[in-house]
Amino acid sequence: MTRRPGPTVRTRVVELRGEERLAHEDRLATEEPLEIRLAWPGAPARRIGVTMRTPGNDFELAAGWLVHEQVVAPAHVTAVRYCTDVDLAPEEEFNVVTVESSAAPLRLPEARLVTAACGVCGTTSIADVARLAASPAVPALPVEVIRSLPDRLRQAQPGFERTGGLHAAGLFDAAGEPVVVREDVGRHNAVDKVVGSRLLAGEPVPPVLVLSGRVGFELVQKAAVSGIGLVVAVGAPSSLAVSLAEETGIAVVGFTRPDRCVVYAGADALGV
Amino acid sequence: MTRRPGPTVRTRVVELRGEERLAHEDRLATEEPLEIRLAWPGAPARRIGVTMRTPGNDFELAAGWLVHEQVVAPAHVTAVRYCTDVDLAPEEEFNVVTVESSAAPLRLPEARLVTAACGVCGTTSIADVARLAASPAVPALPVEVIRSLPDRLRQAQPGFERTGGLHAAGLFDAAGEPVVVREDVGRHNAVDKVVGSRLLAGEPVPPVLVLSGRVGFELVQKAAVSGIGLVVAVGAPSSLAVSLAEETGIAVVGFTRPDRCVVYAGADALGV
Repeated sequence: MTRRPGPTVRTRVVELRGEERLAHEDRLATEEPLEIRLAWPGAPARRIGVTMRTPGNDFELAAGWLVHEQVVAPAHVTAVRYCTDVDLAPEEEFNVVTVESSAAPLRLPEARLVTAACGVCGTTSIADVARLAASPAVPALPVEVIRSLPDRLRQAQPGFERTGGLHAAGLFDAAGEPVVVREDVGRHNAVDKVVGSRLLAGEPVPPVLVLSGRVGFELVQKAAVSGIGLVVAVGAPSSLAVSLAEETGIAVVGFTRPDRCVVYAGADALGV
Repeated sequence: MTRRPGPTVRTRVVELRGEERLAHEDRLATEEPLEIRLAWPGAPARRIGVTMRTPGNDFELAAGWLVHEQVVAPAHVTAVRYCTDVDLAPEEEFNVVTVESSAAPLRLPEARLVTAACGVCGTTSIADVARLAASPAVPALPVEVIRSLPDRLRQAQPGFERTGGLHAAGLFDAAGEPVVVREDVGRHNAVDKVVGSRLLAGEPVPPVLVLSGRVGFELVQKAAVSGIGLVVAVGAPSSLAVSLAEETGIAVVGFTRPDRCVVYAGADALGV
């Protein structure tokens, strides 16, 4: 029977609060790909694109996206349904939505930059990336050092103080020392920039990535491709981010504060 | 002479702190499109895609993105440069980067869902959207009501309490009452969902959009297409978000707290 994914999933975490080590269950926001298809009179349903999303209200998401992108006019949407193609595996059925329009599309979107690694189901996406990723070395930094990394990132982040509107990403070495920090309105861009800086400098990519925000699938994907072993974030990871990290051997720490952090993946490798 | 955009820009705002009205200068994170092109032996430079980013370290961004997407191997990047095509306007020159590779691409990315409305320069992007947008009515809500909207959004957001990893978007009516709230790991998805819900219900789109995070160009673009007149956010807007809001007559309020908010666009329409 097909399992329809919910908005959150349970996971086991290790919380390091003060001197305490607390192993308990936590909840993650579910992240899964959604493929949006469009069908109009005289044309078979056509794949328009894929977005990473939290399952739930998928029909609204598909219809709203097509209207916002000026692909269909609101008045032309006649029906929305999950796909039940014979070529879809059961676990993919709830990740493909077809919008039916009474008219041909006003325009079709052009290719834009988003992650390329996503199949129609999260499991496929993970397998696609895992195949490419090298097994990274996870630097076993002391807990106090891990918990200090977001503050050190902020100290190296001049723009945020001035605007409050920039995400930061930083690469740190195996001793927890900063190597390069970049800011951007897009969190993915900041990660591309820090890794790109090492590439253009002819230097190896340091093993620790520190993020000012949350951790989605695409950010762990970038870490996996670059051989990064530890991702430390101020915010929460998504379900698919944690699954990909587990599959590729990357340690993920979230909600990182001076006195607390939560280990979502790689607790053994970190020795906690 | 070409102006090379910096990471932040100055703007005039109206801050409403307690009972005070403070008109002053503020800084916004700069947001501009970047087109990434790839050239390899025997092939002319080819457009791979466009991302909205904060200018600065553009070569790192272009190289890092191409490597993370497995389009080029790190060892194949031989040079990165701004384009100086005759067909580029001066203000576009710093928004187009070409990466030269010593080998053909490993793969070329497929179309994915990101905003379609972006030319190679911010000005073009704004003109593209402004042409489509209707002049929205800005509901002149009392300041106390505006400042209460993020709290009311949070009250209607069950998932965040459990995971801390979900963005929320809510549509509110002209009296400041909530109509629909949706959550998602992707902030753009949450906005598509609330508007899609009205579409599928056959209801008009309410005039107020409340966001749990920051406000980028793409979110104001969605508001413009849907005829939304007021965007109220917990976080900061970007430069291009404010420019688009001004051009389309949308009011934008950021850093919204019970005792404070900052009006970035539409102060006159809001009567503050």
